[in-house]
Amino acid sequence: MTTQRADTIISGSYLIPDSRQKNVINNGAVAVSKDSIAAIGTSEDILAQFTTERHIHTDHGLIMPGLVNTHTHAPMACFRGLADDLPLMTWLEKHIFPVEARWTPEMIYHSTLLSLAEMIKSGTTSFCDMYLFSKEVARATVESGMRAWIGEVLYDFPSPCYGDLENGFSYVEELFGLYSGHSLISITADPHSVYTCSPELLTRLGKVAQSHDSLYAIHLSENEAEVNTCKERYNCSPVDHLERLGLLGPKTLAAHCVMLDDREIALMAERGVKVSHCQESNMKLASGTAPVVKMIEAGIEVGIGTDGAASNNDVDMFGEMNTVAKIHKVARMDPTAMGAEQTLHAATLGGATTLGASDHIGTLAVGKKADMIVLNMNQPHLTPLYNIPSHLVYAARGSDVIHSIINGRIVMEDRVLQSLDEEQILARMREIGQNIVRHGKD
Amino acid sequence: MTTQRADTIISGSYLIPDSRQKNVINNGAVAVSKDSIAAIGTSEDILAQFTTERHIHTDHGLIMPGLVNTHTHAPMACFRGLADDLPLMTWLEKHIFPVEARWTPEMIYHSTLLSLAEMIKSGTTSFCDMYLFSKEVARATVESGMRAWIGEVLYDFPSPCYGDLENGFSYVEELFGLYSGHSLISITADPHSVYTCSPELLTRLGKVAQSHDSLYAIHLSENEAEVNTCKERYNCSPVDHLERLGLLGPKTLAAHCVMLDDREIALMAERGVKVSHCQESNMKLASGTAPVVKMIEAGIEVGIGTDGAASNNDVDMFGEMNTVAKIHKVARMDPTAMGAEQTLHAATLGGATTLGASDHIGTLAVGKKADMIVLNMNQPHLTPLYNIPSHLVYAARGSDVIHSIINGRIVMEDRVLQSLDEEQILARMREIGQNIVRHGKD
Repeated sequence: MTTQRADTIISGSYLIPDSRQKNVINNGAVAVSKDSIAAIGTSEDILAQFTTERHIHTDHGLIMPGLVNTHTHAPMACFRGLADDLPLMTWLEKHIFPVEARWTPEMIYHSTLLSLAEMIKSGTTSFCDMYLFSKEVARATVESGMRAWIGEVLYDFPSPCYGDLENGFSYVEELFGLYSGHSLISITADPHSVYTCSPELLTRLGKVAQSHDSLYAIHLSENEAEVNTCKERYNCSPVDHLERLGLLGPKTLAAHCVMLDDREIALMAERGVKVSHCQESNMKLASGTAPVVKMIEAGIEVGIGTDGAASNNDVDMFGEMNTVAKIHKVARMDPTAMGAEQTLHAATLGGATTLGASDHIGTLAVGKKADMIVLNMNQPHLTPLYNIPSHLVYAARGSDVIHSIINGRIVMEDRVLQSLDEEQILARMREIGQNIVRHGKD
Repeated sequence: MTTQRADTIISGSYLIPDSRQKNVINNGAVAVSKDSIAAIGTSEDILAQFTTERHIHTDHGLIMPGLVNTHTHAPMACFRGLADDLPLMTWLEKHIFPVEARWTPEMIYHSTLLSLAEMIKSGTTSFCDMYLFSKEVARATVESGMRAWIGEVLYDFPSPCYGDLENGFSYVEELFGLYSGHSLISITADPHSVYTCSPELLTRLGKVAQSHDSLYAIHLSENEAEVNTCKERYNCSPVDHLERLGLLGPKTLAAHCVMLDDREIALMAERGVKVSHCQESNMKLASGTAPVVKMIEAGIEVGIGTDGAASNNDVDMFGEMNTVAKIHKVARMDPTAMGAEQTLHAATLGGATTLGASDHIGTLAVGKKADMIVLNMNQPHLTPLYNIPSHLVYAARGSDVIHSIINGRIVMEDRVLQSLDEEQILARMREIGQNIVRHGKD
């Protein structure tokens, strides 16, 4: 056998290439060449086949696909805990809008870095972000080495970022231009929602998405108030409104989808719409529980999202998996609902599929991009180890992740960030936080 | 000012002596003398007043009361992930009962050590445990230095521990004798439930509890099946059944209490019954959501419990707080329900009150026992820091706890257990886990 050269070999006591226990490889390893996976197998086989100058072995380590967070507002990390336990409109109008009005591009950049640090340190390797000043979000993301789908949110009223809506469309086109062909950043077209965007805005942005063959990401049927507003204004539900406008399709990524009936689920399945399920945010804001089990049964691909840290209050996908797996059991009074493997799928390949990226991320397979994480399983809450998906969904925490590799680059080793300066980010964010509190008291 | 001697001084950037943000002391410190708190204040004041040979300072550290886990089955840690996502009876009959039938005292001892290690490493300093072979549970607990309420569970059928019920009563009496006057271990009287214990057993154990002035801990109204069984057998609900037997009182600690109506809540409040709320277990087993907000409004003291790791699947009270604070918001469609301070209270002083221990644990105050933990707040998911209860409930994880002090003894420093040998426990548990799997395949 000829020996090949790998840029990096990652090995551990266990390797789970997808969400299924039956595919676990004991004493597994991954050979990475440039940005991709060159081989997967037992450590013995991989080390016989490949030489490398960089071999990272973790005793009791578990290698798995990096997690895919399908709905974030990364810069909102700096509002975490600023105001909680309030009615939605009080929270928005008294606390979030006033501080958002004072956003500067610099604050967005640093707040995004904070969120990226948190995401990497809790096992996320890809995310889909919708927010303001998204050029700053993208700039920070490129520095971090993370893979991302990033969009500038548009709505009818003037934006703190681009001002009038017309400028918003130019901003979006610039974004598409800036990141055209980028290996890690994809730009998305992001109308905020049916209650903040006119039919004209929704339709025009739909054409933008079509012209760039991009995702069309939108908050959809998040709560009762949204449905009621839509019915008053358009005499139909948010889903039907998008259907009438011809905007339900396989590149539509709908976040939340709490208030869906069976007919709407069937319609969305028929149109190939993808869903981002944000359970912890839906709980914290008392929006409801999305009928995710029904969606999956209908054939809708569902990914998991944390939403912004201001309404969660973290972006830890391990915590989110735990909640998702449990809430649907109690909501349906069925302990077999949303099993561990199904939930792990939603957080990996399912999420990748909602982003149209299942051909290159979401599982560990030869030829796919090298996006993977390693967890330390040598801990009381992960011992003994009978079933890996069970531990990942019901017992593991983001802090169990020790290494992270994205697109072949090691972005965290032994919990130390390699692409970002964590101490500097924390120090800068403390200053920004103090300014927010000071101005809040004006 | 005369300078006094403290055995230990713990200082940090923040100190929250109870669950309220308004009581936070910036740059706070605690002076510990023997098993108790000698003083609390700013670091400046404490260091002027006390000298010590042991000063543990944590920059960006938060000092807070240790968490109180009011319902556990510690030895079940070794069944975590053995079987999940199954109907309750399949889970019990096909997976849990067969392995429980093969328990040995040695397995119980080691499995308890595993759970103790996990509890200390996630910020719990006190717990209330109900299980089999509880002499072994108590033996392991004494080694760990944790504070605990421990009981041997009794039911009508023969037990793997004591055999016939009559021996069970002797076993309980022996336990009370062994730990009479112990500084850290209190013994409880634990009937399993109304559906597994005859009225005679329930009543006789009630007298045992009375004679020792102990807690009377029982699973109560956990799910619909229990309520239906009780109604068929006794023509009344589980709560009414206990009331008729005269067993509802201020020393009754009822775990779960999912299926309560308003009248039962009022009755329990009137009798001073305490409740242990085990939300994650209730979700995972699809039992339901306990009406905790109503209980608290009625004046019932509610503590939080993780239940056993086999139905959770961890004993991390930070994760449990996060879930508790969120589930009641969505269950009541009210984002103001179970606020951060209220939830933190339930996990500290509230829990202490349910155990009858509010005079000596649950808050940090002069004269109380020195049970406290220190968290490292210098992390992306905890920065910036606007409101400490919010971060503790919605963003912190058990792994953020770096030091733990129980009864004045440092049981964890810089995440290294001081009272237990973690590596040895993990190695032993891996062997036990392998044996369980091997026998499971017999």
